[in-house]
Amino acid sequence: MKMNVNEMLNWRYAVKKYSSRKVANEDVQAITAAINLSASSAGMQPYRLIVVENTDVKARLGEGSFNQQIATASHLLVFAAFENITQEIIDEYMQRTASIRQIPVEAMADFRKSLEAHMLNKTPQDNFTWAARQAYIGLGTGLIAAAERQIDATPMEGFDAAHFDEVLGLKEKGLKSVVIMSIGYRDAENDMFARMKKVRLPLDEFVAEIV
Amino acid sequence: MKMNVNEMLNWRYAVKKYSSRKVANEDVQAITAAINLSASSAGMQPYRLIVVENTDVKARLGEGSFNQQIATASHLLVFAAFENITQEIIDEYMQRTASIRQIPVEAMADFRKSLEAHMLNKTPQDNFTWAARQAYIGLGTGLIAAAERQIDATPMEGFDAAHFDEVLGLKEKGLKSVVIMSIGYRDAENDMFARMKKVRLPLDEFVAEIV
Repeated sequence: MKMNVNEMLNWRYAVKKYSSRKVANEDVQAITAAINLSASSAGMQPYRLIVVENTDVKARLGEGSFNQQIATASHLLVFAAFENITQEIIDEYMQRTASIRQIPVEAMADFRKSLEAHMLNKTPQDNFTWAARQAYIGLGTGLIAAAERQIDATPMEGFDAAHFDEVLGLKEKGLKSVVIMSIGYRDAENDMFARMKKVRLPLDEFVAEIV
Repeated sequence: MKMNVNEMLNWRYAVKKYSSRKVANEDVQAITAAINLSASSAGMQPYRLIVVENTDVKARLGEGSFNQQIATASHLLVFAAFENITQEIIDEYMQRTASIRQIPVEAMADFRKSLEAHMLNKTPQDNFTWAARQAYIGLGTGLIAAAERQIDATPMEGFDAAHFDEVLGLKEKGLKSVVIMSIGYRDAENDMFARMKKVRLPLDEFVAEIV
């Protein structure tokens, strides 16, 4: 069954109960590649993705959470945003862009200056707020990329971010976990949410048109 | 040409120059419907979408911005998040859910209590931060839904949110604009960005696996 994007969005729901079936490596790879292709402000991709397959690590991450999907899904994707934007991050981005586009890094002097002026003068908190929002674009992508392959997913904010950061060693990398997404296969028989109607606003309440 | 999701993501780029071709109403409708179908925390959809087609309003919104796409694209989609979460918003959501799922609203007493305990005790600022993040999930969806139809788009943060809120009368609705997305058709000949290689991290730098 080939679905279009709206069908993918209708097909998916936030799974509560997963079966024990594992997601194949090539599917994980395609989903993470889609997230990596997501748009981000100024193209900076100010977040990273940690993919946890290890059972023990998933169990530790799930300790104390009401979201059993953290421990029981096939894979757990952790979106972790930069806790600040530094000169080093901008420099690396300039180098990468110059290298991929085969231009001298000096050709981007104006772009670099505007990024520096914009970001190095903001507080770390403001930069983190910005970075976290970009990660949510990736989350939106990831949910669709999973649904395209009929892989189920659960986006979650109900987790202990400080605990995640500690278990995954994110602080040393300048990262903070902001949102997570489990992937796997629904246990449709035992997940009462699988049969519930999706609740969305009537389109004319969600959208206001100025014609 | 039918594209899969990763092809859609590779096809799209942040358009700088649009042609004068208008996006058809049915395409606008499909893109906004996809955004309305996006996941959000607790399913609450704490944001709304303003679709601006009116030339004068687009021109006013674009005043003083370096992003000429605000005024020149076919349509401008403004994602506006709730500036706070109130009892009324929770009540409406409960009513909508009960109505769609054909259950008595009292059957959701526990769900309601958990939402109230979680949200009504947070500061408006924290609730807005949360709401804004949900809008970015919708942005991720919107970019893919547009690309599926080979409609171009530009996600933008470089706009004057206070000016937008004033022109669009958002404050009276308890909304604040957080991110915008123009849609239209690329003027490929005159947009030098149309020919540039996409810059993304190598997948093994973006993703860390814990096996």
